[in-house]
Amino acid sequence: MPRRTPSRTVPGELALIESIRTRAARTDSLSSALKIGIGDDCAILRPKPGHDLCVTTDFSLENVHFHRDWHSPQSAGHRCLARGLSDLAAMGAEPVAVFLSLALPAHTPAAWVEDFLDGLLALAARHHVPLAGGDTAQSPASNRNHPGLIAADIVAVGQLPARSPRLRSGARPGDAIYVTGALGGSGAELLSLARNPKKSRSFAAPKAAAPAHPHLYPQPRLAQGRRLRSLAHAMIDISDGLSTDLAHLCRASGLAAELDEAALPIHLLAVAAQRSGLAPSALDLALHGGEDYELLFTAPPTARIPRSIAGVPIHQIGTMRPPSRRQPLIVLSTCASQKIPIAPAGWEHFRPENRTK
Amino acid sequence: MPRRTPSRTVPGELALIESIRTRAARTDSLSSALKIGIGDDCAILRPKPGHDLCVTTDFSLENVHFHRDWHSPQSAGHRCLARGLSDLAAMGAEPVAVFLSLALPAHTPAAWVEDFLDGLLALAARHHVPLAGGDTAQSPASNRNHPGLIAADIVAVGQLPARSPRLRSGARPGDAIYVTGALGGSGAELLSLARNPKKSRSFAAPKAAAPAHPHLYPQPRLAQGRRLRSLAHAMIDISDGLSTDLAHLCRASGLAAELDEAALPIHLLAVAAQRSGLAPSALDLALHGGEDYELLFTAPPTARIPRSIAGVPIHQIGTMRPPSRRQPLIVLSTCASQKIPIAPAGWEHFRPENRTK
Repeated sequence: MPRRTPSRTVPGELALIESIRTRAARTDSLSSALKIGIGDDCAILRPKPGHDLCVTTDFSLENVHFHRDWHSPQSAGHRCLARGLSDLAAMGAEPVAVFLSLALPAHTPAAWVEDFLDGLLALAARHHVPLAGGDTAQSPASNRNHPGLIAADIVAVGQLPARSPRLRSGARPGDAIYVTGALGGSGAELLSLARNPKKSRSFAAPKAAAPAHPHLYPQPRLAQGRRLRSLAHAMIDISDGLSTDLAHLCRASGLAAELDEAALPIHLLAVAAQRSGLAPSALDLALHGGEDYELLFTAPPTARIPRSIAGVPIHQIGTMRPPSRRQPLIVLSTCASQKIPIAPAGWEHFRPENRTK
Repeated sequence: MPRRTPSRTVPGELALIESIRTRAARTDSLSSALKIGIGDDCAILRPKPGHDLCVTTDFSLENVHFHRDWHSPQSAGHRCLARGLSDLAAMGAEPVAVFLSLALPAHTPAAWVEDFLDGLLALAARHHVPLAGGDTAQSPASNRNHPGLIAADIVAVGQLPARSPRLRSGARPGDAIYVTGALGGSGAELLSLARNPKKSRSFAAPKAAAPAHPHLYPQPRLAQGRRLRSLAHAMIDISDGLSTDLAHLCRASGLAAELDEAALPIHLLAVAAQRSGLAPSALDLALHGGEDYELLFTAPPTARIPRSIAGVPIHQIGTMRPPSRRQPLIVLSTCASQKIPIAPAGWEHFRPENRTK
């Protein structure tokens, strides 16, 4: 019998756990900090002496964070892990282990689960991080006509030298604001997928983890985060959109920010989306599109920030300002020399207008 | 306006996160190992020198692990955390921090979320463990008539002296098999709730965390696990039922087991369930009922195992045997001096016969 008959559905939980465990066990040796992986009540981690551990958890819910019509299972698995690793990158941490809790409706094709794991484990291998445990469950049917939805929760654990995290709260007035990579590409690719869902199938292979697919295969900026740890005052990843995540950083640091429109590195896909009429404004995608998974950080104007790290360009996009009651939290200096307020307008759950995403 | 108007529904994600964060922040000081709690890209943990970290994740899904008709929100929150803490107990670990990922359908009553957190944080406080982070998301509607289901994933992190975990694989032939507390109580209380759902409302207060409610308020055996760490060869918690979890331990250790029916500590609620006709057999509840969250461990026959730890009795219930091709993995020596094979028949997801639980 071929290994992947499309009609095969998820076997009993023990068999599913066994299948995940077998694949995960092959990843155990990726981290010397992982002492006991999948198979006991807990995994056991031993960080390097003098290191702290960072922990983050992120949901990937079907029809919220991914759509089976838009995202191949490989992309869904890749994105699930990228969300967690990007949070580690924002702390300047080195990944140590990840954990996957996965709820599957009855009759989920086994091939979907295998391909989801392919996407997740390919990204894990690239960053030398083992899948060390997790949980599996049957996702409940909401009624007879609907078998339920896939829900994944990724837990990422990293280590970093004690007392060296770069928090959101560390920015100082006068700091320059920087961003890695380019902005708006993920939003632009998502618009394109929503219009033509079949397109994503041709990007199914994990090999396609190229900058050309910022939405389907975002690259967590781990190498950049580790390098920037000693240079930045404050750091955060852009998961909800520049406007929303910069507002988080401003509030945590008790400061305001001024962005320079001309300096924003707008992704070519966002420019193309505006030109083709797919999106009204490439600038809006860059400011509010979300899910770019780039790093946003501040550093003293005198800091020697490299122009690129591991092939990823870094751009200065603005300046941190003292807070002011009369001024909005974030203003944009436009190319026409105007200053316009920027309200956080990235992704937020539970907002009525977002309930279709 | 009163704080808890029943018609209030979940506010925007930022407001919800803010509410959880405010409550969680008050718990930060519970653990000296927690350096940075909720509010940044990651939490930061610093285990005691010479200690390893244990990590476990467990889903609590509506209509799988809890039912809003059967479980008060306090009980659902308590049980969600108890699942994670029980895994730490099984390693002999001391809890350091927990993380909660919570997906809520639109229009979930805000009071439900508050009460769920009440239940979870009351148990957390009892074990001095802070809520250090997590994720929130809107649970997707499956169709117009169904707004979606609540999904929680708990991550529990503990610490224990390096090289001292008690794994499932450590049992040796001739070891005595022990169990903490009593068995079958959770299954018996669940049967009673399923028959009369309204009953659980009267047990809503977290104060009711008594042995009288082994299903609604199971008590993770953390103190017992820490004490047993130096005495046991192998340890596991009974979450899926004695028959299933003992089979896990047997397989991991490459051994078989013989249980002594007369020695099984059967919970009074299970005995009462049989007497009243609610359950056909108290013994079946004790063997297969699941969710007792007691510790199952093995130790050399010469080990001085206390009769109770922190008020919880400990009973010897059998002996580990060398494996045999002709013998089943687990046999039960009955009170009638017969030896009958016991197949693992506790809870397993994705099995057709379990799809109604």
